[in-house]
Amino acid sequence: MIFTPLIDHLIESLRVLPGVGAKSAQRMAFHLLERSRQGGTELAKALEQAMTEVRRCKDCWTFCESDVCKICHNPNREKQLLCVVESPADLLAVEQTAHYKGLYFVLMGRLSPISGVSPEDIGIPKLIQHVRGAGIKELILALSPTVEGEATSHYIAERVREMGILVTKIAQGVPLGEELEFVDSGTLAHALNGRRPV
Amino acid sequence: MIFTPLIDHLIESLRVLPGVGAKSAQRMAFHLLERSRQGGTELAKALEQAMTEVRRCKDCWTFCESDVCKICHNPNREKQLLCVVESPADLLAVEQTAHYKGLYFVLMGRLSPISGVSPEDIGIPKLIQHVRGAGIKELILALSPTVEGEATSHYIAERVREMGILVTKIAQGVPLGEELEFVDSGTLAHALNGRRPV
Repeated sequence: MIFTPLIDHLIESLRVLPGVGAKSAQRMAFHLLERSRQGGTELAKALEQAMTEVRRCKDCWTFCESDVCKICHNPNREKQLLCVVESPADLLAVEQTAHYKGLYFVLMGRLSPISGVSPEDIGIPKLIQHVRGAGIKELILALSPTVEGEATSHYIAERVREMGILVTKIAQGVPLGEELEFVDSGTLAHALNGRRPV
Repeated sequence: MIFTPLIDHLIESLRVLPGVGAKSAQRMAFHLLERSRQGGTELAKALEQAMTEVRRCKDCWTFCESDVCKICHNPNREKQLLCVVESPADLLAVEQTAHYKGLYFVLMGRLSPISGVSPEDIGIPKLIQHVRGAGIKELILALSPTVEGEATSHYIAERVREMGILVTKIAQGVPLGEELEFVDSGTLAHALNGRRPV
């Protein structure tokens, strides 16, 4: 025991948060005890409720509070288009463009043999099954252009292409508003290779 | 609403933690939902319990779970010595030296007119009252040597000295194991001024 049993337990429990080590957990615990008991109690309730009530949409696998999420439930979405993203945050990013009206599939991660993340862990069998049954015409891969993201895209593309479905990937190139001289050469190479007639 | 009501509420509630902004709160929420529901539920319980059950020791003002903390309750501590620290973490640091057997008073902060922290907020009236009643012979100031810490030390020293009690301050000087050439000049100046016969 370092402080008191309850404080020690709180500090230990806070370390479940990503990026929170022993010192930050201690700082957080004392901050709440000293200045924000109300906020701490509120956080306890929010955590308790979210941990028990948030589940996965049975179609797209994103987090939701009912059987099917709002997007999957919306009759105005184009049901032939399926966009595969890594996380609910990425789904939100695509939604915020207001340029996509199809459906989503949220992997909740990406393939990583080193960290032991297998196709099953990120729901790829579920995705394949979903694609097979849902009359999808185009599968859009919108994963982050990292090594693991690319590997995941490749893995999914291989499997879905076999089913005679068009598989596309969002364009890689120069971001809007960027000065060309500061763009890294990998991105510039992709932009050159992906050039289009004006 | 960005995600779902429960997730949005969880993200908002996590921002009560110091140093946690919108993006980190979002990352924390998804991390818990995806990978550590058990840990999240555990954290909710620990928070709930600590927020309601942890209170202040009636003598030294540190956090504890009973009326009086273990140190104040220990009959083997020297009751004429009182060490003033800023936080329970500082109290722990002094305890870990194993060179101090007196009692403590924990301010839970330091004077800061800019942030609106007054002597009342950090329990100085309570400290004065405690010193008056407890037969204390020496008050040791062990606050951090920052501008606000120094101002707080000065403020307390002024008030306690009037009562005919010896007020001391922990030494400022070169830390053990440090190369002299890398010690900042303020610290070195303090070390020179505080030189002692060998």
